[in-house]
Amino acid sequence: MATRGRLLALEGIDGCGKSTQARALSQALGARLTHEPGATALGDTLRQILLAPDAPAVSPRSEALLMAADRAEHVALVLEPALTAGEWVVSDRFSGSTMAYQGYGRGLPISELSALVAWATAGLVADLSILVDVTVDVAGARLDPGARDRLEGLGPEFAGRVRDGFLAQAAQDPEHWVVVDGTMEERALTTSLVEIVRQRFGPPPRGAR
Amino acid sequence: MATRGRLLALEGIDGCGKSTQARALSQALGARLTHEPGATALGDTLRQILLAPDAPAVSPRSEALLMAADRAEHVALVLEPALTAGEWVVSDRFSGSTMAYQGYGRGLPISELSALVAWATAGLVADLSILVDVTVDVAGARLDPGARDRLEGLGPEFAGRVRDGFLAQAAQDPEHWVVVDGTMEERALTTSLVEIVRQRFGPPPRGAR
Repeated sequence: MATRGRLLALEGIDGCGKSTQARALSQALGARLTHEPGATALGDTLRQILLAPDAPAVSPRSEALLMAADRAEHVALVLEPALTAGEWVVSDRFSGSTMAYQGYGRGLPISELSALVAWATAGLVADLSILVDVTVDVAGARLDPGARDRLEGLGPEFAGRVRDGFLAQAAQDPEHWVVVDGTMEERALTTSLVEIVRQRFGPPPRGAR
Repeated sequence: MATRGRLLALEGIDGCGKSTQARALSQALGARLTHEPGATALGDTLRQILLAPDAPAVSPRSEALLMAADRAEHVALVLEPALTAGEWVVSDRFSGSTMAYQGYGRGLPISELSALVAWATAGLVADLSILVDVTVDVAGARLDPGARDRLEGLGPEFAGRVRDGFLAQAAQDPEHWVVVDGTMEERALTTSLVEIVRQRFGPPPRGAR
Protein backbone atom coordinates (compact mmCIF):
# COMPACT_ATOMS: atom_id res chain seq x y z
CA MET A 1 0.00 0.00 0.00
CA ALA A 2 1.29 3.46 -0.92
CA THR A 3 2.24 5.97 1.76
CA ARG A 4 -0.71 8.29 2.15
CA GLY A 5 -0.43 11.51 0.13
CA ARG A 6 -0.68 15.09 1.37
CA LEU A 7 -3.51 17.55 0.98
CA LEU A 8 -2.46 21.19 0.65
CA ALA A 9 -5.21 23.82 0.55
CA LEU A 10 -4.78 27.34 -0.76
CA GLU A 11 -7.13 29.73 1.01
CA GLY A 12 -7.88 33.44 0.98
CA ILE A 13 -10.32 36.11 -0.15
CA ASP A 14 -11.15 36.53 -3.82
CA GLY A 15 -8.40 38.46 -5.56
CA CYS A 16 -5.65 37.32 -3.16
CA GLY A 17 -3.86 35.36 -5.88
CA LYS A 18 -4.38 31.87 -4.44
CA SER A 19 -5.57 30.30 -7.73
CA THR A 20 -2.37 31.38 -9.47
CA GLN A 21 -0.32 30.08 -6.54
CA ALA A 22 -2.27 26.80 -6.39
CA ARG A 23 -1.44 26.19 -10.05
CA ALA A 24 2.24 27.11 -9.64
CA LEU A 25 2.64 25.11 -6.43
CA SER A 26 1.04 21.98 -7.89
CA GLN A 27 3.39 22.22 -10.89
CA ALA A 28 6.46 22.71 -8.73
CA LEU A 29 5.54 19.72 -6.55
CA GLY A 30 4.26 17.50 -9.35
CA ALA A 31 1.01 17.40 -7.38
CA ARG A 32 -2.56 17.05 -8.60
CA LEU A 33 -4.40 20.39 -8.88
CA THR A 34 -8.06 20.61 -7.93
CA HIS A 35 -10.51 23.21 -6.64
CA GLU A 36 -13.74 23.94 -4.75
CA PRO A 37 -16.49 24.39 -5.46
CA GLY A 38 -17.07 22.59 -8.73
CA ALA A 39 -14.46 19.87 -9.26
CA THR A 40 -17.00 17.06 -9.83
CA ALA A 41 -20.03 16.66 -12.12
CA LEU A 42 -22.29 17.47 -9.18
CA GLY A 43 -19.99 20.26 -8.06
CA ASP A 44 -20.12 21.92 -11.46
CA THR A 45 -23.91 22.24 -11.17
CA LEU A 46 -23.67 23.44 -7.58
CA ARG A 47 -21.06 26.02 -8.52
CA GLN A 48 -23.55 27.54 -10.96
CA ILE A 49 -26.24 27.61 -8.27
CA LEU A 50 -23.90 29.13 -5.71
CA LEU A 51 -21.78 31.57 -7.64
CA ALA A 52 -23.51 32.63 -10.87
CA PRO A 53 -24.06 36.38 -10.51
CA ASP A 54 -27.67 36.06 -11.71
CA ALA A 55 -28.54 33.01 -9.57
CA PRO A 56 -31.32 33.62 -7.04
CA ALA A 57 -30.13 34.11 -3.46
CA VAL A 58 -30.35 31.08 -1.19
CA SER A 59 -30.71 31.11 2.60
CA PRO A 60 -27.44 31.02 4.61
CA ARG A 61 -27.94 27.46 5.85
CA SER A 62 -28.76 26.22 2.35
CA GLU A 63 -25.64 27.90 1.01
CA ALA A 64 -23.49 26.20 3.66
CA LEU A 65 -25.16 22.83 3.00
CA LEU A 66 -24.61 23.15 -0.76
CA MET A 67 -20.93 24.00 -0.20
CA ALA A 68 -20.74 20.98 2.11
CA ALA A 69 -22.42 18.77 -0.52
CA ASP A 70 -19.88 19.91 -3.09
CA ARG A 71 -17.06 19.12 -0.65
CA ALA A 72 -18.46 15.70 0.29
CA GLU A 73 -18.52 14.75 -3.38
CA HIS A 74 -15.03 16.18 -3.93
CA VAL A 75 -13.69 14.19 -0.97
CA ALA A 76 -15.41 10.94 -1.98
CA LEU A 77 -14.59 11.03 -5.70
CA VAL A 78 -11.32 12.97 -5.95
CA LEU A 79 -9.41 13.70 -2.75
CA GLU A 80 -9.72 10.47 -0.76
CA PRO A 81 -8.86 8.19 -3.72
CA ALA A 82 -5.85 10.36 -4.66
CA LEU A 83 -4.53 10.57 -1.09
CA THR A 84 -5.02 6.84 -0.58
CA ALA A 85 -3.03 6.22 -3.75
CA GLY A 86 -0.20 8.30 -2.28
CA GLU A 87 -0.71 11.38 -4.44
CA TRP A 88 -0.08 14.89 -3.24
CA VAL A 89 -2.99 17.21 -3.95
CA VAL A 90 -3.21 20.99 -4.07
CA SER A 91 -6.77 22.29 -3.71
CA ASP A 92 -7.78 25.83 -4.57
CA ARG A 93 -10.04 26.28 -1.49
CA PHE A 94 -11.14 23.64 1.01
CA SER A 95 -12.85 23.59 4.44
CA GLY A 96 -11.29 26.88 5.57
CA SER A 97 -13.33 28.71 2.95
CA THR A 98 -16.65 27.46 4.31
CA MET A 99 -15.68 28.56 7.80
CA ALA A 100 -14.57 31.98 6.49
CA TYR A 101 -17.40 32.72 4.04
CA GLN A 102 -20.44 31.02 5.58
CA GLY A 103 -19.26 31.37 9.20
CA TYR A 104 -17.43 34.68 9.62
CA GLY A 105 -18.96 36.18 6.45
CA ARG A 106 -22.60 35.07 6.61
CA GLY A 107 -22.67 34.83 10.39
CA LEU A 108 -23.56 31.14 10.86
CA PRO A 109 -22.37 29.79 14.26
CA ILE A 110 -18.75 28.65 13.94
CA SER A 111 -19.02 25.52 16.11
CA GLU A 112 -22.11 24.27 14.25
CA LEU A 113 -20.51 24.93 10.88
CA SER A 114 -17.36 23.17 12.02
CA ALA A 115 -19.40 20.04 12.84
CA LEU A 116 -21.09 20.22 9.43
CA VAL A 117 -17.76 20.50 7.62
CA ALA A 118 -16.31 17.60 9.63
CA TRP A 119 -19.27 15.43 8.64
CA ALA A 120 -19.14 16.41 4.96
CA THR A 121 -15.45 15.57 4.74
CA ALA A 122 -15.81 12.38 6.84
CA GLY A 123 -13.09 13.91 8.99
CA LEU A 124 -10.57 14.69 6.23
CA VAL A 125 -8.50 17.74 7.20
CA ALA A 126 -5.95 19.48 4.96
CA ASP A 127 -2.40 18.62 6.05
CA LEU A 128 -1.65 22.29 5.50
CA SER A 129 -3.89 25.25 4.69
CA ILE A 130 -1.97 28.14 3.20
CA LEU A 131 -3.63 31.51 3.65
CA VAL A 132 -2.56 33.88 0.86
CA ASP A 133 -3.31 37.05 2.74
CA VAL A 134 -3.94 40.48 1.23
CA THR A 135 -6.01 43.41 2.44
CA VAL A 136 -9.49 43.90 1.04
CA ASP A 137 -8.26 47.00 -0.81
CA VAL A 138 -5.50 45.08 -2.58
CA ALA A 139 -7.86 42.25 -3.50
CA GLY A 140 -10.53 44.66 -4.68
CA ALA A 141 -8.11 46.45 -7.00
CA ARG A 142 -7.23 43.13 -8.63
CA LEU A 143 -10.79 41.91 -9.25
CA ASP A 144 -12.55 42.81 -12.47
CA PRO A 145 -15.82 44.41 -11.27
CA GLY A 146 -17.74 43.01 -14.25
CA ALA A 147 -16.57 39.45 -13.63
CA ARG A 148 -17.34 39.09 -9.92
CA ASP A 149 -19.31 36.05 -8.81
CA ARG A 150 -22.03 36.23 -6.20
CA LEU A 151 -19.80 35.94 -3.15
CA GLU A 152 -17.21 38.29 -4.65
CA GLY A 153 -19.94 40.85 -5.28
CA LEU A 154 -20.95 41.19 -1.61
CA GLY A 155 -18.67 44.18 -1.08
CA PRO A 156 -15.71 45.20 1.06
CA GLU A 157 -17.39 44.85 4.46
CA PHE A 158 -18.24 41.20 3.76
CA ALA A 159 -14.78 40.56 2.32
CA GLY A 160 -13.29 42.08 5.48
CA ARG A 161 -15.18 39.66 7.70
CA VAL A 162 -14.08 36.77 5.49
CA ARG A 163 -10.44 37.85 5.69
CA ASP A 164 -10.71 38.13 9.48
CA GLY A 165 -12.18 34.63 9.47
CA PHE A 166 -9.22 33.22 7.60
CA LEU A 167 -6.76 34.99 9.91
CA ALA A 168 -8.62 33.71 12.98
CA GLN A 169 -8.48 30.11 11.77
CA ALA A 170 -4.77 30.41 11.04
CA ALA A 171 -4.11 31.92 14.48
CA GLN A 172 -6.11 29.19 16.25
CA ASP A 173 -4.50 26.23 14.50
CA PRO A 174 -0.88 27.01 13.61
CA GLU A 175 -0.15 23.29 13.23
CA HIS A 176 -2.38 23.14 10.14
CA TRP A 177 -2.20 26.72 8.88
CA VAL A 178 0.44 29.08 7.56
CA VAL A 179 -0.07 32.70 6.48
CA VAL A 180 1.89 34.14 3.55
CA ASP A 181 1.99 37.67 2.16
CA GLY A 182 -0.09 37.79 -1.02
CA THR A 183 1.53 41.03 -2.14
CA MET A 184 4.88 39.31 -2.74
CA GLU A 185 6.07 39.01 -6.32
CA GLU A 186 4.38 35.95 -7.88
CA ARG A 187 7.40 33.73 -8.49
CA ALA A 188 9.05 34.64 -5.20
CA LEU A 189 5.85 33.66 -3.41
CA THR A 190 5.71 30.29 -5.21
CA THR A 191 9.34 29.62 -4.26
CA SER A 192 8.49 30.46 -0.67
CA LEU A 193 5.45 28.10 -0.70
CA VAL A 194 7.50 25.22 -2.12
CA GLU A 195 10.06 25.77 0.63
CA ILE A 196 7.39 25.81 3.37
CA VAL A 197 5.89 22.56 2.06
CA ARG A 198 9.28 20.82 1.77
CA GLN A 199 10.25 21.83 5.28
CA ARG A 200 7.03 20.39 6.67
CA PHE A 201 6.61 17.26 4.58
CA GLY A 202 9.90 16.56 2.84
CA PRO A 203 10.16 16.00 -0.91
CA PRO A 204 7.00 15.03 -2.85
CA PRO A 205 6.60 11.37 -3.97
CA ARG A 206 8.34 11.56 -7.35
CA GLY A 207 10.32 14.74 -6.70
CA ALA A 208 9.59 18.13 -8.25
CA ARG A 209 8.85 18.14 -11.96
CA MET B 1 -49.20 38.06 16.89
CA ALA B 2 -50.97 35.01 15.48
CA THR B 3 -50.98 31.69 17.33
CA ARG B 4 -48.27 29.60 15.76
CA GLY B 5 -49.54 27.22 13.07
CA ARG B 6 -49.10 23.46 12.87
CA LEU B 7 -46.80 21.46 10.62
CA LEU B 8 -48.16 18.08 9.54
CA ALA B 9 -45.86 15.82 7.51
CA LEU B 10 -47.01 12.91 5.39
CA GLU B 11 -44.32 10.24 5.22
CA GLY B 12 -43.91 6.81 3.67
CA ILE B 13 -42.28 4.83 0.88
CA ASP B 14 -42.99 5.71 -2.74
CA GLY B 15 -46.32 4.29 -3.81
CA CYS B 16 -47.84 4.36 -0.32
CA GLY B 17 -50.38 7.01 -1.31
CA LYS B 18 -49.10 9.84 0.87
CA SER B 19 -49.17 12.48 -1.88
CA THR B 20 -52.87 11.81 -2.52
CA GLN B 21 -53.53 11.94 1.22
CA ALA B 22 -51.45 15.10 1.68
CA ARG B 23 -53.58 16.84 -0.94
CA ALA B 24 -56.86 15.60 0.53
CA LEU B 25 -55.86 16.39 4.11
CA SER B 26 -54.74 19.92 3.26
CA GLN B 27 -58.07 20.54 1.50
CA ALA B 28 -60.08 19.14 4.39
CA LEU B 29 -58.21 21.30 6.90
CA GLY B 30 -57.93 24.41 4.75
CA ALA B 31 -54.18 24.07 5.21
CA ARG B 32 -51.34 25.01 2.92
CA LEU B 33 -49.99 22.11 0.86
CA THR B 34 -46.27 21.83 0.17
CA HIS B 35 -43.70 19.12 -0.52
CA GLU B 36 -40.05 18.04 -0.38
CA PRO B 37 -37.81 18.04 -2.20
CA GLY B 38 -38.44 20.83 -4.65
CA ALA B 39 -40.84 23.41 -3.19
CA THR B 40 -38.53 26.41 -3.73
CA ALA B 41 -36.59 27.75 -6.73
CA LEU B 42 -33.42 26.16 -5.34
CA GLY B 43 -35.30 23.00 -4.42
CA ASP B 44 -36.62 22.59 -7.93
CA THR B 45 -33.04 22.45 -9.26
CA LEU B 46 -31.96 20.11 -6.46
CA ARG B 47 -34.91 17.82 -7.13
CA GLN B 48 -33.65 17.37 -10.68
CA ILE B 49 -30.14 16.58 -9.43
CA LEU B 50 -31.43 14.15 -6.82
CA LEU B 51 -34.29 12.36 -8.48
CA ALA B 52 -34.02 12.56 -12.27
CA PRO B 53 -33.66 8.94 -13.42
CA ASP B 54 -30.76 9.88 -15.72
CA ALA B 55 -28.92 12.10 -13.21
CA PRO B 56 -25.42 10.86 -12.31
CA ALA B 57 -25.17 9.14 -8.93
CA VAL B 58 -23.88 11.24 -6.05
CA SER B 59 -22.09 10.00 -2.94
CA PRO B 60 -24.32 9.20 0.08
CA ARG B 61 -23.13 12.17 2.13
CA SER B 62 -23.65 14.55 -0.79
CA GLU B 63 -27.15 13.20 -1.30
CA ALA B 64 -27.98 13.77 2.37
CA LEU B 65 -26.47 17.29 2.27
CA LEU B 66 -28.45 18.19 -0.85
CA MET B 67 -31.68 16.96 0.76
CA ALA B 68 -30.75 19.02 3.82
CA ALA B 69 -30.08 22.09 1.64
CA ASP B 70 -33.50 21.68 0.02
CA ARG B 71 -35.09 21.44 3.48
CA ALA B 72 -33.19 24.43 4.88
CA GLU B 73 -34.49 26.54 2.00
CA HIS B 74 -38.02 25.15 2.42
CA VAL B 75 -37.97 25.95 6.15
CA ALA B 76 -36.55 29.46 5.67
CA LEU B 77 -38.75 30.56 2.76
CA VAL B 78 -41.98 28.59 3.15
CA LEU B 79 -42.55 26.71 6.41
CA GLU B 80 -41.27 29.11 9.06
CA PRO B 81 -43.05 32.19 7.60
CA ALA B 82 -46.32 30.25 7.23
CA LEU B 83 -46.17 28.78 10.75
CA THR B 84 -45.27 32.16 12.24
CA ALA B 85 -48.29 33.66 10.47
CA GLY B 86 -50.47 31.02 12.14
CA GLU B 87 -51.05 28.86 9.07
CA TRP B 88 -51.41 25.12 9.18
CA VAL B 89 -49.18 23.39 6.68
CA VAL B 90 -49.29 19.87 5.24
CA SER B 91 -45.95 18.77 3.75
CA ASP B 92 -45.60 15.78 1.44
CA ARG B 93 -42.37 14.51 3.09
CA PHE B 94 -40.19 16.24 5.70
CA SER B 95 -37.32 15.25 7.99
CA GLY B 96 -38.53 11.68 8.49
CA SER B 97 -37.80 10.97 4.83
CA THR B 98 -34.13 11.91 5.15
CA MET B 99 -33.77 9.66 8.16
CA ALA B 100 -35.51 6.80 6.34
CA TYR B 101 -33.92 7.11 2.88
CA GLN B 102 -30.42 8.39 3.60
CA GLY B 103 -30.12 6.79 7.06
CA TYR B 104 -31.87 3.41 7.04
CA GLY B 105 -31.80 3.14 3.23
CA ARG B 106 -28.31 4.39 2.32
CA GLY B 107 -26.77 3.38 5.63
CA LEU B 108 -25.51 6.74 6.92
CA PRO B 109 -25.21 6.82 10.73
CA ILE B 110 -28.58 7.74 12.25
CA SER B 111 -27.27 9.98 15.03
CA GLU B 112 -25.06 11.98 12.67
CA LEU B 113 -27.88 12.37 10.16
CA SER B 114 -30.20 13.44 12.93
CA ALA B 115 -27.79 16.24 13.89
CA LEU B 116 -27.57 17.31 10.24
CA VAL B 117 -31.36 17.44 9.88
CA ALA B 118 -31.70 19.40 13.13
CA TRP B 119 -29.22 21.95 11.85
CA ALA B 120 -30.81 22.26 8.40
CA THR B 121 -34.25 22.89 9.92
CA ALA B 122 -32.89 25.22 12.63
CA GLY B 123 -34.66 22.87 15.03
CA LEU B 124 -38.09 22.89 13.37
CA VAL B 125 -39.84 19.56 13.98
CA ALA B 126 -43.17 18.50 12.47
CA ASP B 127 -45.96 18.70 15.05
CA LEU B 128 -47.12 15.37 13.66
CA SER B 129 -45.57 13.01 11.11
CA ILE B 130 -48.13 10.65 9.62
CA LEU B 131 -46.66 7.45 8.25
CA VAL B 132 -48.89 6.07 5.49
CA ASP B 133 -47.70 2.52 5.77
CA VAL B 134 -47.94 -0.17 3.10
CA THR B 135 -45.77 -3.19 2.36
CA VAL B 136 -43.13 -2.95 -0.34
CA ASP B 137 -45.19 -5.34 -2.50
CA VAL B 138 -48.28 -3.15 -2.32
CA ALA B 139 -46.28 0.00 -3.08
CA GLY B 140 -44.43 -1.70 -5.94
CA ALA B 141 -47.67 -2.79 -7.58
CA ARG B 142 -48.91 0.82 -7.54
CA LEU B 143 -45.78 2.42 -9.04
CA ASP B 144 -45.44 2.78 -12.79
CA PRO B 145 -42.09 1.09 -13.53
CA GLY B 146 -41.37 3.52 -16.38
CA ALA B 147 -41.92 6.59 -14.22
CA ARG B 148 -39.77 5.76 -11.21
CA ASP B 149 -37.33 8.37 -10.00
CA ARG B 150 -33.82 7.52 -8.86
CA LEU B 151 -34.69 6.63 -5.29
CA GLU B 152 -37.81 4.74 -6.36
CA GLY B 153 -35.72 2.74 -8.79
CA LEU B 154 -33.43 1.26 -6.14
CA GLY B 155 -35.52 -1.88 -5.80
CA PRO B 156 -37.49 -3.76 -3.14
CA GLU B 157 -34.60 -4.43 -0.75
CA PHE B 158 -33.83 -0.71 -0.49
CA ALA B 159 -37.54 0.12 -0.17
CA GLY B 160 -37.79 -2.46 2.62
CA ARG B 161 -35.03 -0.77 4.61
CA VAL B 162 -36.70 2.60 4.07
CA ARG B 163 -40.06 1.25 5.29
CA ASP B 164 -38.36 -0.23 8.36
CA GLY B 165 -36.75 3.16 8.94
CA PHE B 166 -40.11 4.92 8.93
CA LEU B 167 -41.61 2.31 11.29
CA ALA B 168 -38.61 2.62 13.62
CA GLN B 169 -38.97 6.41 13.83
CA ALA B 170 -42.69 6.10 14.54
CA ALA B 171 -42.07 3.50 17.26
CA GLN B 172 -39.37 5.62 18.91
CA ASP B 173 -41.31 8.87 18.99
CA PRO B 174 -45.06 8.20 19.40
CA GLU B 175 -45.60 11.76 20.56
CA HIS B 176 -44.72 13.09 17.10
CA TRP B 177 -45.64 10.11 14.87
CA VAL B 178 -48.74 8.16 13.98
CA VAL B 179 -48.93 5.15 11.66
CA VAL B 180 -51.95 4.64 9.43
CA ASP B 181 -52.84 1.76 7.12
CA GLY B 182 -52.15 2.85 3.54
CA THR B 183 -54.32 0.05 2.11
CA MET B 184 -57.50 1.66 3.47
CA GLU B 185 -59.96 3.04 0.95
CA GLU B 186 -58.79 6.53 -0.05
CA ARG B 187 -61.65 8.62 1.34
CA ALA B 188 -61.96 6.58 4.50
CA LEU B 189 -58.26 7.13 5.12
CA THR B 190 -58.60 10.89 4.62
CA THR B 191 -61.52 10.98 7.08
CA SER B 192 -59.40 9.07 9.54
CA LEU B 193 -56.46 11.49 9.14
CA VAL B 194 -58.68 14.53 9.65
CA GLU B 195 -60.02 12.93 12.83
CA ILE B 196 -56.52 12.18 14.13
CA VAL B 197 -55.42 15.76 13.51
CA ARG B 198 -58.53 17.26 15.15
CA GLN B 199 -58.14 15.09 18.21
CA ARG B 200 -54.53 16.21 18.63
CA PHE B 201 -54.74 19.85 17.70
CA GLY B 202 -58.38 20.87 17.70
CA PRO B 203 -60.00 22.65 14.76
CA PRO B 204 -57.78 24.40 12.19
CA PRO B 205 -57.59 28.24 12.28
CA ARG B 206 -60.50 29.03 9.97
CA GLY B 207 -62.32 25.69 10.27
CA ALA B 208 -62.50 23.06 7.56
CA ARG B 209 -63.26 24.29 4.08
